[in-house]
Formats: sequence, structure tokens, C-alpha cells
Amino acid sequence: MQNFLPLFYGLSFLTAVIAFLFALYLFLWVRKRKVENTEIERISALIKEGANTFLRREYKLLAAFAGGVALLILLIFPRPIWNGQALENVLTALAYLAGTALSALAGKIGILVATLSNGRCAEAARKGLKDAFLIGFRGGSVMGLLVVGCSLFGVAAVLLIAGDTTTLIGFSFGASSLALFAKAGGGIFTKTADVSADLTGKVELGIAEDDPRNPAVIADNVGDNVGDVAGMGADLFDSNVAAMTSALVIAQGLGSQPAMEMVFCYALLGLLASIVGIATARVGKHGNPTRALNSSTYVTTAIFLVLTAIATAIVPGFSWRIWLSSATGLIVGLIIGLTTDYFTDDTKPIVRKVAHASASGPAFTILSGTSYGFISALPAMVGIAVSSLVSWQLCAPLGDGYAIYGIAMAAVGMLSIVGMIISNDAYGPIVDNARGLAEMGGLGEETIRVADELDSAGNTVKAVTKGFSIGAAGLTVISLLGAFMSETNSALAALGKAPITGFDVMLPTVFFGLLVGAAIPAVFSAMLILGVDKNAQRMVAEIHRQFDTIVGLKDGDAMPDYDRCIDIATKGALKELVPAGLVAIIATLLVGFIAGPLAIGGFLVGNIVSGLLLALFMSNSGGLWDNSKKYVEAGGEGGKGSAAHKAAVIGDTVGDPYKDTAGPSINTQITVVSLVASLASGLFAAFSLFG
Amino acid sequence: MQNFLPLFYGLSFLTAVIAFLFALYLFLWVRKRKVENTEIERISALIKEGANTFLRREYKLLAAFAGGVALLILLIFPRPIWNGQALENVLTALAYLAGTALSALAGKIGILVATLSNGRCAEAARKGLKDAFLIGFRGGSVMGLLVVGCSLFGVAAVLLIAGDTTTLIGFSFGASSLALFAKAGGGIFTKTADVSADLTGKVELGIAEDDPRNPAVIADNVGDNVGDVAGMGADLFDSNVAAMTSALVIAQGLGSQPAMEMVFCYALLGLLASIVGIATARVGKHGNPTRALNSSTYVTTAIFLVLTAIATAIVPGFSWRIWLSSATGLIVGLIIGLTTDYFTDDTKPIVRKVAHASASGPAFTILSGTSYGFISALPAMVGIAVSSLVSWQLCAPLGDGYAIYGIAMAAVGMLSIVGMIISNDAYGPIVDNARGLAEMGGLGEETIRVADELDSAGNTVKAVTKGFSIGAAGLTVISLLGAFMSETNSALAALGKAPITGFDVMLPTVFFGLLVGAAIPAVFSAMLILGVDKNAQRMVAEIHRQFDTIVGLKDGDAMPDYDRCIDIATKGALKELVPAGLVAIIATLLVGFIAGPLAIGGFLVGNIVSGLLLALFMSNSGGLWDNSKKYVEAGGEGGKGSAAHKAAVIGDTVGDPYKDTAGPSINTQITVVSLVASLASGLFAAFSLFG
Repeated sequence: MQNFLPLFYGLSFLTAVIAFLFALYLFLWVRKRKVENTEIERISALIKEGANTFLRREYKLLAAFAGGVALLILLIFPRPIWNGQALENVLTALAYLAGTALSALAGKIGILVATLSNGRCAEAARKGLKDAFLIGFRGGSVMGLLVVGCSLFGVAAVLLIAGDTTTLIGFSFGASSLALFAKAGGGIFTKTADVSADLTGKVELGIAEDDPRNPAVIADNVGDNVGDVAGMGADLFDSNVAAMTSALVIAQGLGSQPAMEMVFCYALLGLLASIVGIATARVGKHGNPTRALNSSTYVTTAIFLVLTAIATAIVPGFSWRIWLSSATGLIVGLIIGLTTDYFTDDTKPIVRKVAHASASGPAFTILSGTSYGFISALPAMVGIAVSSLVSWQLCAPLGDGYAIYGIAMAAVGMLSIVGMIISNDAYGPIVDNARGLAEMGGLGEETIRVADELDSAGNTVKAVTKGFSIGAAGLTVISLLGAFMSETNSALAALGKAPITGFDVMLPTVFFGLLVGAAIPAVFSAMLILGVDKNAQRMVAEIHRQFDTIVGLKDGDAMPDYDRCIDIATKGALKELVPAGLVAIIATLLVGFIAGPLAIGGFLVGNIVSGLLLALFMSNSGGLWDNSKKYVEAGGEGGKGSAAHKAAVIGDTVGDPYKDTAGPSINTQITVVSLVASLASGLFAAFSLFG
Repeated sequence: MQNFLPLFYGLSFLTAVIAFLFALYLFLWVRKRKVENTEIERISALIKEGANTFLRREYKLLAAFAGGVALLILLIFPRPIWNGQALENVLTALAYLAGTALSALAGKIGILVATLSNGRCAEAARKGLKDAFLIGFRGGSVMGLLVVGCSLFGVAAVLLIAGDTTTLIGFSFGASSLALFAKAGGGIFTKTADVSADLTGKVELGIAEDDPRNPAVIADNVGDNVGDVAGMGADLFDSNVAAMTSALVIAQGLGSQPAMEMVFCYALLGLLASIVGIATARVGKHGNPTRALNSSTYVTTAIFLVLTAIATAIVPGFSWRIWLSSATGLIVGLIIGLTTDYFTDDTKPIVRKVAHASASGPAFTILSGTSYGFISALPAMVGIAVSSLVSWQLCAPLGDGYAIYGIAMAAVGMLSIVGMIISNDAYGPIVDNARGLAEMGGLGEETIRVADELDSAGNTVKAVTKGFSIGAAGLTVISLLGAFMSETNSALAALGKAPITGFDVMLPTVFFGLLVGAAIPAVFSAMLILGVDKNAQRMVAEIHRQFDTIVGLKDGDAMPDYDRCIDIATKGALKELVPAGLVAIIATLLVGFIAGPLAIGGFLVGNIVSGLLLALFMSNSGGLWDNSKKYVEAGGEGGKGSAAHKAAVIGDTVGDPYKDTAGPSINTQITVVSLVASLASGLFAAFSLFG
């Protein structure tokens, strides 16, 4: 069979470059819009500065961490360097660093564009929806294009240079290390600021959400950017790289050239489809921004399916069964998004039920939101279960090992439109910021109304993208399990030991790992939530101090010290994040060294299953509470100031760290743990107490 | 080797009869105590009547349900009757009915004694701790002795008559059906009443907890009995029977006589040890009731370990490895109890941290309680994981299949002291009721103080017994997984198909089952919580109606209509419980018929893992909130009426259905699902879409 791999390498680089150029065009387009209001310019600059401060600190800490990990990789991963094969270790360490660097770069530029767009979007909102929408969306798209471009470029480059997929695992691990920092650290930052600003501003002083007298208000706006732009971007960079990596690891294990070609082919076609979707997104002067965002997603999906079908038809060796698996993954992803929407949209019954329960008091807000959050996990879990079963059944006839490859390709399919998804997601914080700026800049009620409409579309779409990204992570980590097994087996073969054929839960070590692994996401998310809690307490104390000591602050005659709040949120976030991440990594190593590779298989499965459940529960119940508060504020159940409103605000405060800190970080935790396991598989194979 | 099985049958019956006689003695002893206060007598009679009303309705519904299930068993379980072998089906159906009937009987008598003891305990509290403690404890012990006696007697009788362990699964399934009704139905009842009474009484009217003007007050006291006495009793009856059943199924599969003998031997020695522990429990006039309860538990444990060691030494064929497994199970059970205590005891730091967080508002009460609840699951999960790994490693050298038998014996060991555990647990609602009666009967402050001290010991010990019962259920269901596999294999062998050797999570059907199974406990518990929510809304409306329409009720000149409240709680509980139970059972059957026995293996594992996690989380965070409220009420963080108190009350209200409805019902859900799977294994083996 002809070797098309070089062609697909070339096409991957080409598509990535097209994406970069298009991103550059969008960036320049956004930059050309004007900001005339000096207050907006000033505040926008403050937000930008704050976000950069956070990123700088975060990246500094990360650099130290990454340096340490790279050194460790150099010494012992994938195999101890003193056993020879030093080159592999060097390459893996370099790939690891490249993974962190590319993700950091994408995050940095994404933030740059987002903080550039917010003021311009607010300004444009004076003239109506049309332009303001485009600025918000195109600003977000820069991030989307960069993330997907970098992941395609990075994966292709690493594989081309190293020639071996083990090195790729290092690259993927680099991406997830950064995602862990960006998502969990950013999540703690954003919720620290949000919760403290709300508690002191809205609750204690009764001032508006974005009142510039509140010392935490800039930190709050910074938080939207570092949490949702940089954090979400890093998260999906991570998932995307991990999905491609595991598919490639398995494909190499199969020794099949077309299987490897398909990964690149589908990924690059997904990026092309996203470019078209992004380029065609529009909203009329009185159009509906939610519909505009969703319809570009559907356009992207359709284009992807058509392009990949054509590719499958013309490239020799491509299989329709694999195409069907990818299509199943993508469609299940959309369905998961839609069910998430059902549970969190305030025009649908669940949000209203929770709002109604709030009228009986906050305990009922919590109980009903928790319950529906748990129930909302079912369709997504079943969806992931069905798509993995279907892909398996479809691809098993292709030969030994193809079934798990089919699952990996379902994940690649689900993530194919990720460029579009990130664009939608990064749109959210830009228009959210724009709304705040419109208020702080005094642009008048009509402008705020327009900004509100854009913001509300952002919130609705966010629920869908969150469900989508959890689903994608779910499928990805299932295929990472396959990657772990093939890594372990090559390590076992090198040691002259018998290979692992599976992870039978009736084996005690597997079951042991399963139980421990299932507890980890619970502990991890609890530590993050407690981190927000502790950090918010520090920040509330600082806000009180400022109101007590800065003369004239309450009357608006003096300026608060915004920087101190940003500083507290930054330091605290990084401080609280590290132990949570370490617990997950250390638990993996402990289980591996105590009970061996089989136990790690169980550990990963337990981690995936309970992680998915908790991530879905937390993201959805958080979204549900947020929107029931909004529903009450819009006049439902007695409206603002009613008992239901008070209760709904409490629900929203509980939901904030659920949906923006813990829930979405669990994804990353699962991926990190899976990749640590794959990297350390050689060590576990060589040494464990009871393995 | 000599056949000692007849000897152990005989000894089992003998020990059960001794337990029954001792229970009768304790019952008569309690009945001889006097109640002089007519008000107490009147109210105590109301509680008794209310509890009986609930039980009657519940048992009526259950009888219909059990009749239907028995018919189904008769027709198709373990194998369709038209394939011949009708006798097995008839025996299984009869065993099923016997399981429900014995459990119901134990529950009924337990309630009878508990409602007899509460007034006598209140009366005795006038003279100090000593006698009041004994009445509370001995009243509870009747239930403990009956439950363990019935389970030992029942298991021995069924096995002796049927001669085959498949029939025993029917008996065990009967016990769990009843437990599902008793625990989930009782849980909904008790929290409906509790939440409504608190909301209308304490919050709206500002009257005391047990004020007789509150129409829900009797329902609230009834709830303690039906939830904690009958419910917990049925739950542990179920676990105990299930542990013995799975050990016996596996032992029969091994074809080993001594393995079967050991099950009976250890179970009967555990009952004997509990009898000694119960007989020797005492508290001095100024002694510490918590210490008295705990030290009897330790005495029982020590006696059990010594007696079983002697038996292991003298009976030919008994193995020290199995003894060590049982001992490990028991000790891990105690450790799980102690860690639960650490997270929920108000003299320890966690409860105080949550109380402290409450000072910042209810959102922080919820966030911190949720977080510590999640963390608290870790030690128990690790404990269960370690004890199953240790038992496996200990017993694997004994031969093929002995490892899983070792795990089953660890569960039997953990449950050996269950008589003592139930006694401690049933003590709780008796003294809780006594405290209410002392208040309603106007027995004066000193008596209330004594009753409070007894009550507080009940709450502390309850946390330990809850952790213990979840741990026991965890180990039991692991061994039920082994039982499911041996049932499936005998069905497959009969069909001429190849046996299952394990449940490899890398197989798509297993993974499919795993994901679906993991979602079920979340949905199940959410439905129960929503049930409490809905039911409480109905009851609050009724209480409002009574206060609005009954002239003089607020001033204490007229009597409320207690019966209407009991009626609402009863009907609602039974109505809300059924769909939750059906969801779990139908999901099992769907997964089995769609994806076959392998998927069911995955389903059970997912169910166990996420069920344990959620059960531990809910029970512990609920206990944590309850005790932080008590800590604040005792003067911490500003005491009663402070902002922290308000927040702590909200936490407690959220925790109520967590800890008393959903959390402890998950155990039963897991067991029910495991047994349904075992019973239907023949059908799944014969027919499934993708299996």
C-alpha cells in the first residue's frame, strides 16, 4: 500500500498554518475596531494587566514545576536512563516542554485578544448587536484557531521528529500539566474573585455587580479571562492532543499506516471545517446570537462529516467503519451538549423547578439542584457508554486491537469541531467583560441591554460546550486506557514478562485500584473547592480592610486598590492548586508501585467513572443554579429581593466553584493521571510490591 | 474428612433460639418498667399507633409487590419453568417470601419494643442516667438480637431444606426487597416529617422542636422509629443475609465442606459474642453513655476474635488464612467507623471548621460540608480496597476460587458483630423519642438534660454504625459479584456455552455496563431526595392548613390533627419510593438483556464503586452538618440565633435527606441490584442482544 503519511504530515502543517494566518487576520480585524470611551479604555487596560499578572505568576510557577518534571522524565521516563536508550528520554523530556510551551503560548495570545476585544465589543454594542457580536465571536475564535492549530502542528512535529508515539505521550503530558494549572488555578482565581465581589458588593453593600467602587471588580473580570479563556483553552488543547495521541499510540501498536493517516486526516479536516464555520458566523441587527453560535456549530459538524466522508472514499485503506465511529462520537457529543442544555436552560422546566423550590428556602434550592445535577449525569454517561460500545462493535471486525482504535477515533471525531467549540466558549467571557465595561463606562441602558443579550447567549452556549468537553474527555481517557495498556505491554515485553491482556475487575489488584481511583476525583474537587473557600475568605478580609481604611471609597471619591485583590487571588489560587494536583499524581504513583500495572488499570477506570460522574454533576448543577438565579432576577418566583431570590443567590454561590473550579478541572485531573500512568508504565512493570 | 455441617446447622438453630429467648427476656424486662406520667403515656401511644399505621401500609404495599415478584420467580427464575426443574423455582419463590417475612417480622417487633421503651426511658431519666440508659439500650437490643437470630435461622433453614445455594439467593433477595422498602420508604417518611416540622415549627413559629402544638411532631417521632429502627434493622438484616449467602454460594461452588461450615460457625459465634456484649453493657450513675456503647462493641469484637480463633484451631479443615481475612474485615470495619467519627464528631476539628465557615453564610456551610464529605469517603474506600486485597492475598494460596471466598469471609467477619451494631443503632431513636417525651410530658429541665446526654451518645455512635454498615455492604457486594459469576457460569454450562473467567474492563460491553451502573446510584438517590422534597411540600401545606383552620391551636387550647400528617408522610413515602426502586431494577434488566452477563458484571462494579462513594459522601456530610448545627447551638460561633446558626440550620436541612434517606438507602439499592443480577443470570446468559 502506498505511504500517504508524509502527505498528511504536510497537509497538517499546511492546515495549521492556514489556521494561524486566519487567526492573525481576525486579530488584526478586531484590533482595527475603535474604543472612544476613555473610562472603558482605562478599565480594559486594568483587566489586561491583571490577567497578565496572573499568567506571569502562573507560568513562572509552572516553569519551575515543568523543569522539575522534565528532569524527572529525562532520568527515568519512559525507562531509567541508566538502562541505555538515553535518546528516547531526552526526546520525551523535550516533547513534554514543547507541550507546556505551546499550550501556554495559545493561552497567552488568547488572553491578549480577549482583553483587546472586550472594550471594543462594549463600544460596538452602542450600535446594536451585529458588530458587537462579531467582535466577541472573532476575538474568541483567535483562541479557538490557535489551540487547534497548535495541537495539530505540535502532534505532527513531535511524531515526525521522534518517529515514536511514546514521545508523543510526553508532549500530551506537557499539555495536561499546563491544563491542570490553567484550569484549576484559573478556576480558583475566578471563583475567589467572583464570590468575594458578590459577597461584599451585592450582599453586604447592595451595589451593582460591576460597580467600580468594589476592590474585587477588576479581579472578577480578570477571572473570567483566566478561567474561561486561558483555562478552557488549555483544557481543550489537552483533550485534543490526548485524543490524537492515544489514537496514534494505538495505531502504531496496530502497525497500520492508514490508521495513523486517518488521525491526521480527520483532525485537519476538522480544523478546516471549523475555519469555515468561524468565517461564516453572522448575526443580523435584530438576530438571535444564541442561534448564530449554535448554527455555526452545526455548519461545522456538517462540513466535517462531508469532508471526512470524501476522504474516506478516496484515500486507499481508510475504512467506513472508522468514519462511522468518528461520526458517532461527534453526534453523541452534540447530544450530550443538548441534554446539558435541557438541564440548565432557563426556558426549560428543570431550572424553573429549582427556582420554584427556592421559594421554600435555600435548603430546597440546594437539595433540588443537587438532585437534578445527579440525574443530569445519566444521559451523558449513557451517551459515552453507547458511543464507546457502538465504535467497538463497528471496528472490532477490522481486526485485533481495532476496536479500541475505533473508540479513540470516536474521541477524535467528537473533538474534531473543537475549534468551533472553543470559539463559542471564549466568546462568553469577552461579552461578559463587555457587559461589565458598558456598565462601568456608563454607556447607557440600551447598550447594557444589548451586552446582556450577548452575554446571555454566551451563558447558554457555555453549558453546551461544557457538556461537550466532558464527554470528549470521557471518550479520550477511555482510549488513553488502551494507550496505557499498549505502553505497559511494550515495557513488559522488554522485561521478558508476559503481556497484560486486560483489566479484570475480579482480580484483587484491579479492584483495589478501582476503589482508590474512584475516590480521587472526589478528594481532588473537594480540595479545590476548599481552596476557593479559603482564598475567598482572605479576599473578603482585604475588601473589608479597603472599605474601612480608604477614605471616600464608599462614596466613589477615592479609587480602590484593585491590584491587591488580584494579587491575593493569584497567590492563593496557585497555593491551593498544588496540593490537589499532587494528591492525584502521588496516588497514581503509590497505587502503581504498591500494586502494579493491573492495579493502575483499575485505578484509571475508577478515576474515569467517578470523575465523569462528578464532573457532570458539578458542572450541570452549577449551571442550573446560575440560571435559576437569573430566572428569578428576571421576575420569576417573586423576582429580585424575594425570599426565592435570596435562596437562589445562595444556590448560585454554591454552584460557582462547582461549575467553574471543580467540575471542569476534573477532566484535566483524569487526563493527567492517565498520562502519568502511561509514562510510568515501564517503572510499574519493572517494580511493584504486590503486582 | 468428617462432615461437621449437620453439627453447625444444629448449633446455628440453637444459637438463634438462645438469641430469641434472650430478646424475650429483655423485652419483658423493659415492659416491667413503669410509666406514671399520663401525658407521656398518651403521646407514646400516639407514636406507637403512627408507627404501626406506617408499617401496616408499607407491608400491605410490600405484600402486593412481593406477591408479584414471587410469581415472577416462580415462572422464570432461576430458569424458565417450562424448561422443567419446577421445584427449584417453587423453592426460590418460597425462600423469597420467607426472606421478606422474616425481615418484616423483625422490623415489626423492633418497632413494638422501641415504642414501648421510649416512654419508660423518659420516665427513668428522672432518676438519672443509669436505668434510662439500660432501658434505651435493652430496648434496642431486642431488635439487634432478632435481626441476627432471624438471619442465622433463616439462612440455615433455607439451605437445609433446599440443599442448594441458588435458593438462598432468593431468600436474600427477599430480605433486600424489604430493606429497600423499609430503608428508602422509612427514610422518606422520617425526613418528610422532620423537615416539615422544623420548617413550620422552629423556623416559622419559633416554637421548640418537640412542641405538641405542631401537627407534625408525632409524625416526626414516628419517623425516628420507622427510619432508624425498622429501616436500619432491615438494612443490616439484608447485608448480613447477603454476606452469608454470597460466602455460601462461593463455598458451594468450591465444593468444600469446611468452607461452608466456617460461614455458619463464624456467624453463630458472632451472635454469641453480641449476646455477651449486650448482656454486659452498663453505665454508672454519672458514667459516660458513649463510652458504654463503644466499650460493649469492643468487648464483642474481642470475644468474637477469641472464639473464632479457638474454633479455627479445633475444627478440622478450618484455615487460619480465612480467620485472618475475617479478622481483617472486622478490624477494617471498626477503622472505617472511627474515621467516620473523626469527620462527624463535634469535639473534632472538621465539624468546627464547617461551623466556622457557616459564619460567612449558608453557601459556605454547604461548600465546606460537601468538600469534607467527599474527602471523608477516601479512608473508607481505601479501607475496603485494602481489606479486599489483603483477604485475597491471604486466601489465594488455598486454591482456585478461594480468594473471592476470602473476601466473602471478610464481609462475614465485618458483619459478625452486627447484633451489637444494631443494638447501638436502635438505642438512638429510643432515647431521641424519650427526649421528646420528656419535653412534651413536662418532666423538667434536669430530666431533659439527662435525656439529652443519652441522645447525644446515640448520635455519636450512629455515625460509627453508619460508616460500619456502608463498609460491610461494600465488602458484601464485592463477594456478591463472585456469586453472580458462579451463578452465570452454571447457567452458561447448562446452555453448553463457555464460562466467563472475569470482567475485563477493556471489553466494550463491560465498560458500557460500568458507565451505566455508575450513574444509577446518583439517579436513585436524587429521586429519593426529590421525593422528600415533594412530600415535605405537601406536609407543610397541611400544617399551614391546620394552623389556619383549627381555632386555638396556636395557643395550645386545641389539639392538632396528628393523624393527617402521619397519613401524608406515609402515602407520600410509599409513592415516591417505588419509581426510584424500579429505575434501579429496570436499568439492571435493560443492561443485561441488551449487553449480556459481561455488561452486568461491569454494571455491578460501576454501581458498587459509585454507590459506595455517594453513600459515604452523603452519610458523612449529613452527619457533619447535623453536628455542626449542634455545636453552634451549644454556643459555638455565636450560638443560637447568630448568622452562623441560621446557616448551620440550612446545612442541617440539606443534610437530613442526605444522611437519613439517600445515603443509607444506596447500600440497599446496590444489594438489590446485585441479587436481581444473580437471579436473572440464567436469562441473561440465554438471551441478550449484543452479549
